[in-house]
Amino acid sequence: MNSNTFGTAYSLTTFGESHGLAIGGVIDGCPAGVLLNKSLIESELAKRKPGFGAAVSARKEPDEVEFLSGLFEGQTTGQPIAFLIRNRDAKSSDYDNIKNVYRPSHADFTYQEKYGIRDYAGGGRASARTLLPCVVAGAIARQILATQGITVRSDVVQIGEQCSQGFSAEEIERILSRFREEKDTVGAVVQATINNVPVGLGEPAFMKFHATLAHAMMSINAAKGFEIGEGFNAARMRGSECNDEFTFDGERIRTKTNHSGGVQGGITNGEDIVFRVAFKPIPSVMMPQQTVDIHGNAVTLEIQGRHDVCVVPRVIPMVEALAAMVTLDFVLLKKCNKI
Amino acid sequence: MNSNTFGTAYSLTTFGESHGLAIGGVIDGCPAGVLLNKSLIESELAKRKPGFGAAVSARKEPDEVEFLSGLFEGQTTGQPIAFLIRNRDAKSSDYDNIKNVYRPSHADFTYQEKYGIRDYAGGGRASARTLLPCVVAGAIARQILATQGITVRSDVVQIGEQCSQGFSAEEIERILSRFREEKDTVGAVVQATINNVPVGLGEPAFMKFHATLAHAMMSINAAKGFEIGEGFNAARMRGSECNDEFTFDGERIRTKTNHSGGVQGGITNGEDIVFRVAFKPIPSVMMPQQTVDIHGNAVTLEIQGRHDVCVVPRVIPMVEALAAMVTLDFVLLKKCNKI
Amino acid sequence: MNSNTFGTAYSLTTFGESHGLAIGGVIDGCPAGVLLNKSLIESELAKRKPGFGAAVSARKEPDEVEFLSGLFEGQTTGQPIAFLIRNRDAKSSDYDNIKNVYRPSHADFTYQEKYGIRDYAGGGRASARTLLPCVVAGAIARQILATQGITVRSDVVQIGEQCSQGFSAEEIERILSRFREEKDTVGAVVQATINNVPVGLGEPAFMKFHATLAHAMMSINAAKGFEIGEGFNAARMRGSECNDEFTFDGERIRTKTNHSGGVQGGITNGEDIVFRVAFKPIPSVMMPQQTVDIHGNAVTLEIQGRHDVCVVPRVIPMVEALAAMVTLDFVLLKKCNKI
Amino acid sequence: MNSNTFGTAYSLTTFGESHGLAIGGVIDGCPAGVLLNKSLIESELAKRKPGFGAAVSARKEPDEVEFLSGLFEGQTTGQPIAFLIRNRDAKSSDYDNIKNVYRPSHADFTYQEKYGIRDYAGGGRASARTLLPCVVAGAIARQILATQGITVRSDVVQIGEQCSQGFSAEEIERILSRFREEKDTVGAVVQATINNVPVGLGEPAFMKFHATLAHAMMSINAAKGFEIGEGFNAARMRGSECNDEFTFDGERIRTKTNHSGGVQGGITNGEDIVFRVAFKPIPSVMMPQQTVDIHGNAVTLEIQGRHDVCVVPRVIPMVEALAAMVTLDFVLLKKCNKI
Repeated sequence: MNSNTFGTAYSLTTFGESHGLAIGGVIDGCPAGVLLNKSLIESELAKRKPGFGAAVSARKEPDEVEFLSGLFEGQTTGQPIAFLIRNRDAKSSDYDNIKNVYRPSHADFTYQEKYGIRDYAGGGRASARTLLPCVVAGAIARQILATQGITVRSDVVQIGEQCSQGFSAEEIERILSRFREEKDTVGAVVQATINNVPVGLGEPAFMKFHATLAHAMMSINAAKGFEIGEGFNAARMRGSECNDEFTFDGERIRTKTNHSGGVQGGITNGEDIVFRVAFKPIPSVMMPQQTVDIHGNAVTLEIQGRHDVCVVPRVIPMVEALAAMVTLDFVLLKKCNKI
Repeated sequence: MNSNTFGTAYSLTTFGESHGLAIGGVIDGCPAGVLLNKSLIESELAKRKPGFGAAVSARKEPDEVEFLSGLFEGQTTGQPIAFLIRNRDAKSSDYDNIKNVYRPSHADFTYQEKYGIRDYAGGGRASARTLLPCVVAGAIARQILATQGITVRSDVVQIGEQCSQGFSAEEIERILSRFREEKDTVGAVVQATINNVPVGLGEPAFMKFHATLAHAMMSINAAKGFEIGEGFNAARMRGSECNDEFTFDGERIRTKTNHSGGVQGGITNGEDIVFRVAFKPIPSVMMPQQTVDIHGNAVTLEIQGRHDVCVVPRVIPMVEALAAMVTLDFVLLKKCNKI
Repeated sequence: MNSNTFGTAYSLTTFGESHGLAIGGVIDGCPAGVLLNKSLIESELAKRKPGFGAAVSARKEPDEVEFLSGLFEGQTTGQPIAFLIRNRDAKSSDYDNIKNVYRPSHADFTYQEKYGIRDYAGGGRASARTLLPCVVAGAIARQILATQGITVRSDVVQIGEQCSQGFSAEEIERILSRFREEKDTVGAVVQATINNVPVGLGEPAFMKFHATLAHAMMSINAAKGFEIGEGFNAARMRGSECNDEFTFDGERIRTKTNHSGGVQGGITNGEDIVFRVAFKPIPSVMMPQQTVDIHGNAVTLEIQGRHDVCVVPRVIPMVEALAAMVTLDFVLLKKCNKI
Repeated sequence: MNSNTFGTAYSLTTFGESHGLAIGGVIDGCPAGVLLNKSLIESELAKRKPGFGAAVSARKEPDEVEFLSGLFEGQTTGQPIAFLIRNRDAKSSDYDNIKNVYRPSHADFTYQEKYGIRDYAGGGRASARTLLPCVVAGAIARQILATQGITVRSDVVQIGEQCSQGFSAEEIERILSRFREEKDTVGAVVQATINNVPVGLGEPAFMKFHATLAHAMMSINAAKGFEIGEGFNAARMRGSECNDEFTFDGERIRTKTNHSGGVQGGITNGEDIVFRVAFKPIPSVMMPQQTVDIHGNAVTLEIQGRHDVCVVPRVIPMVEALAAMVTLDFVLLKKCNKI
């Protein structure tokens, strides 16, 4: 059922487990003739490295990407672009203690029950690391979108109880260090904006721009909520305050406000796409937890090693990458709307 | 790109405009040998009729469904089930005044720009009415799910500023009547629960149960937000409070709490699926609004006729129907996980 | 699994049984702004009517198409185009005698075994009539292709042992009348040509132009073989005689010969697409046949009523329609090859 | 548009160019819990090695497959199985002379025109080598099918003008050596049989077993024709001779003959699937050919190096592999026919 593929015209198929030989992906439908800027890709991947932010797990992940196909003299050829990221620093023996235990709010139990087998090392296929190929496909998408003037950016706007227009890296680290000391973890909200989006992206009825974007964002590990424009706040509002009145700015038709978040009827209206994704706390807390083993016996679990305290800042390149992939997909699909 | 099709193993293709001859759909992949209970389908459709709740538009919509194929002596044959709902009461002349005007926060502008042409009568393809075929496909899905013990129900938990565990039809009507008097509209939140879901539904990495559910829900007109389990509230929480510890209840492994909303790693864990969808206010307010015509000229718009004040209660069968469709799809797909 | 849908950018979902209320389809992805020429559609459908050729079954099939959606003031809107063809003249009682009998080389047995239920009247979903929606979708495709100068035509080049460059309607009727007198049926080969195809249609590795075309043609009832260019004859040839050498004709690069049938590496090379489809004899012979009933008891079957003697001439609009659908699909998909 | 993916429930995405770093694939939907027999995979790949048959190109291709994901302790986990085959012996400089020349009946011209860029070394993405990942996915499919008793085998039944029930390796080599001496190449026909196929595989209307099989086979390089059962011969036949009468063999309903090739109405009937694929001569003849360069200038081309004389015997594992993939796909899809 091709459940590891995302996208229609510009698509990505991902593979790999956290502690397997490699994770990677195959991009299908990348337009031909694009001179790939690999340093942009590496710089996006670098944002996921430990050391980019301090509030992350101590595992060394060089995350070097190796391109295997689809490029000729540095340019895309229109053929599938396969790439690998080797898992170099993985030590599976670290995970022997969780081999037979279901960690609370992890995917251990559901994978085991569904498939009758699971790669337990580092969360296997359920690890957040397995979405890393999206960062590569997203970085390529961003490069192509940039030629159309379209850009993506995002901010951490909430960590636990604290909200902001956008926390700085230092502020994030300061907040997270408190939770780390308490051996606990915390949730967060990321807000992203896609700028300079042309009118007309999104394909009703079931490939609406924001519905597809929601699908993408909810595919990120730990994502529990998605909203666009006013989002949940729109439920509190009256039509008279939530409606975006149209106006003509001398050049093109615009809306005076952007409560819609850039989408009306599932199609972009030319205003900025503004959306937020809520993430739950990382379930790997450092304090003892009650759970069961695979036989149903009660056990007290103490998770070893160092783990991230929060999905931010490392989830940020993921959010931006998937937003870019969705946008490029719709830019390509739009070409088919007229003959 | 088949953008009017939703679902993989159990899929629905929809067609039709608000004021065209008919709206309808084609269900593909419905298991064979199911004796269709048409009164269940009609009863779901009836929940969308005026008079079911009073706070709805006065248009008469008998919404009788005519099945054209895929049934033999009342049973499904495994072949595509096509059905029609004729638009009997539509008067397109009612809409001449909006032919050249872009109503704020409607899809008039985006459809016109994207396609260069639009069926403006009653919102055309962008009307909420065009998702009515989902209610039919959902009612059939519910009937099949019921044979597995799986059920879906939902509640209106927020209207404007007011929240509840679940408003009664009378409470909904009382609240909405206030907004109607003020010629305004209002947003709402619907919470739905899928009960008795087996462990193992959902197909990572990109057909996760909740990501696909989010996609479905965000496809409903006016939906601006989706959350599962703790949702946006999870962003405020610590791991130690948000984690769902496992326990063995003598029969099977369960979680003590259900902050996850029944999904871990994108796969159902056997607990109830609990999710919420936020809807913006219906944009057709009865007071004058500033907007532009298709040439960019400023105009003052006064929307005629009677319109719904809020998506609830009429959106409820839609939410439940799409939830049932998604669940049945994954029930079928799960059959392929093992040989 | 959407098995009743064919096509990617320009797709058709079909439904309906031979003797149900109606057969029909939903076209998704038709470009917006095309003024539909309904008489072209009707003229294609007319080619399937009894009386068009005499060597066809006597059932009256007016085959009037009713469009339900996707059109506004006669133009396509980019929204799904649904249409119906009512089955007016069907008498299911004619088929009571085959209710419990498996007709040789029909789909009675396989449908019954696969689904545990079947609509036996007139072959139900397995009737050739159920591909009639392709003629509608194909006629629309042809109209759009015509604006690009692309045309499709076909000829009957073989009936039984007799071959020709292209039999006339009279010749076909004369040959078939002999088989009709003998209460037998006969196979045939249709050759089709797509002219003025641009270079670059087809998407390797698995949506090659000719592989997709083969898929389409083999979906037609009674099709048993497909070949492109030299086809099976190529197996007899040497490279030195089968190769198509390139030349420059002053305007563009051409091939001197067209053994390839217009496709190289799965992509059109600008020469005519030439392909042939082999059809088996219609299995409804008028003489007694030995077979079994659904319980496995031996029975002698004598098929009642009048049936076609050969798939030609009625299959011709089907072949051309599917060829047009495939071609338009690739014309649209090609738009995504470059940004 | 995911054109490099084939299959629905059991799918393969391929990537790689003939002379790039590697070719490979990602299998999605492989059932969990299968202990992979890697020696079976290697033995299938070995059939493509030079030395297996002598009548093949002299390029050394160790074709070792490296599995990157989807396996745990040797068993499939239900997660995507990615694998690589490194291109170790490739020397791109060998191809400088064809960099600017369009070889007759190769894909050089069509790729260049379609994408504006091509990897010319060794045919790049258009090389037959790029379908090698199908052999891996097919070998895994065969292993799973074997647990159901389903097997696939094939024979070379025609080379040039010579026909046989199935040529031996020695006979093939003897025939091909003649063409090699004459610096020419030759076409061939491969016949394959799928045994012990259960009744009920294939999903009408557009995923008929044989239509999907045709699609798969026509995706193989140099394939120009496909037929099932009597195939093109059926066009010569009468219904009374081509029909397969049913009989009951004491255990199950069978057909007395198998002119249908195991498929009726697009669904397998429990008899052997018998089909043939016609391949054109390999276009790389060793004698001078007239063609043009990328600017349209006439040039005389003399192809260097050693090339295969015929697609057989190397195409055989490809045919069998794709047949196995298609069959397994339908075995899985059939699980969804009933609840």
